[in-house]
Amino acid sequence: MTGIKDITVTFRTDLPLWPGDPTPTTTLMKSQEAGSRSNVTRIDTGVHFGTHLDAPRHFIADGKGVDELDLNMLVGPCVVAEVLGVKEITPGHLEALNIPAGTKRLLLKTDNSALWETPNHDFDVEFVAITREAAQWIVDRRIGLIGIDYLSIQLFADRDAATHVILLSVEVIIVEGLDLREIAPGAYNLTCLPMKIAGADGAPVRAILTAA
Amino acid sequence: MTGIKDITVTFRTDLPLWPGDPTPTTTLMKSQEAGSRSNVTRIDTGVHFGTHLDAPRHFIADGKGVDELDLNMLVGPCVVAEVLGVKEITPGHLEALNIPAGTKRLLLKTDNSALWETPNHDFDVEFVAITREAAQWIVDRRIGLIGIDYLSIQLFADRDAATHVILLSVEVIIVEGLDLREIAPGAYNLTCLPMKIAGADGAPVRAILTAA
Repeated sequence: MTGIKDITVTFRTDLPLWPGDPTPTTTLMKSQEAGSRSNVTRIDTGVHFGTHLDAPRHFIADGKGVDELDLNMLVGPCVVAEVLGVKEITPGHLEALNIPAGTKRLLLKTDNSALWETPNHDFDVEFVAITREAAQWIVDRRIGLIGIDYLSIQLFADRDAATHVILLSVEVIIVEGLDLREIAPGAYNLTCLPMKIAGADGAPVRAILTAA
Repeated sequence: MTGIKDITVTFRTDLPLWPGDPTPTTTLMKSQEAGSRSNVTRIDTGVHFGTHLDAPRHFIADGKGVDELDLNMLVGPCVVAEVLGVKEITPGHLEALNIPAGTKRLLLKTDNSALWETPNHDFDVEFVAITREAAQWIVDRRIGLIGIDYLSIQLFADRDAATHVILLSVEVIIVEGLDLREIAPGAYNLTCLPMKIAGADGAPVRAILTAA
C-alpha cells in the first residue's frame, strides 16, 4: 500500500441510526446564497453515530472521557484481520487469526464492511460482532484498541452489556463503524483521532491507515 | 520532543464563541444515572467552533467540502514559527521567519496561544491574524496548509473576506484555534484530521505533532 487509506465512513445524516438515537442533522446556519459573507454549517448528532469510538465512560460511570484517552494507543502499529462468513466472533475465531504476539491494535474486517457499499442503508441488527468470551480474549491478550466495521463491537441480541464492560473496564479503546472494504488483511500504522470533547462517552473519529 | 503533542483545544461549550454563532450544547441523551444501559452524549455545534479547519466551501460557493480535502496535505512535515508582539502579521513578518524552502505546512504561534490558558474566556476581537498581503505571500510560497492559534486566520476588523478568499480559492487548508502554548518553534510532523462531514464548509479537527 502506498499513501494514506481513509477508513472513515463519510458523515451523512442518512447513515444507519442506532435504534432510539436521535436522527442527526446538519444545517447551513449561514449561507452566501442567503446573503451571508460565508457558509457555516451546524451539526447536531449523537457521538456514537458513524465512525466513532467508545470511551470507558460509555458504560463505566466513573470511567475516562474521550478527551482523556492515551494518544499513544490511538496512534501506532495495528493489525487488520479478516473474519468472513461468521456472525458471532468467538475466541476460536480470534485464535485462528494467528495475530502476532505483542499486537496492541486490532481491526476486525467482517462481512459488515460490505454494508458500507450503501451508506444510507437501514440499520442492520444482524451485524457481525464479538462474543463476551472474545472480549475477554482481547483483554487477556493485552490488546489496547479493538476496531470493527459496524456500529457496535457487541452483538445486537445481547441481553446485557458484558462485552462492552469487559473491554471498557480495563480501558480498551473500542472503534466502531470503520469502513475496511478496501483494506487487505495485514500490518499497518493506524492513526485514529477522535474529536476531543470534554468528558464525553465517545466521539466521532477520523481514522487512517498508512504502510507499516 | 518525544511522543505525541496534542495541539487541540478540548471542546467545551464555554469556549469563546464567534459573534453571531449559536452557543454549542452537549447533552447526555442517555445516562446510566437515569436508568439507561449506557451513557450517550449528543453534541450540537457550529463546525467553526474550537480547534477546526476551513474547507474552500467556507467562502467559495462551489469549493471543496471538508470531506474532499487531500489527506496528503493534512498529514506531513510542518514548521511551527513564532511571531510574538505583533497584532497584524504582514509579509515582512513571514519573510523574517526564514522558513525553509519547500515548506508545505506552516503553523503560526502568536500571542493568541496565551488566551488558551483560560479556555472559557470571552471571544477576544483583538486576536492576532494575517493581512491579505500575508495571505498572498503564503499562496506565492506554495504553502498548502496554514494554521493559527485563534479562531480566524483573518483580522476581525477586516471589512471584506479577502484573506480567506485568497487562501481558499487555491485550496490552502486553514486550521484555526490551535493551542501552541507548549510547542517550541521548529520542524515537526503534523497530523490534522477533521471530522469527515459530507460537503461541509469546515469541521472540528484533532491535531497532533510528533518529532520531525
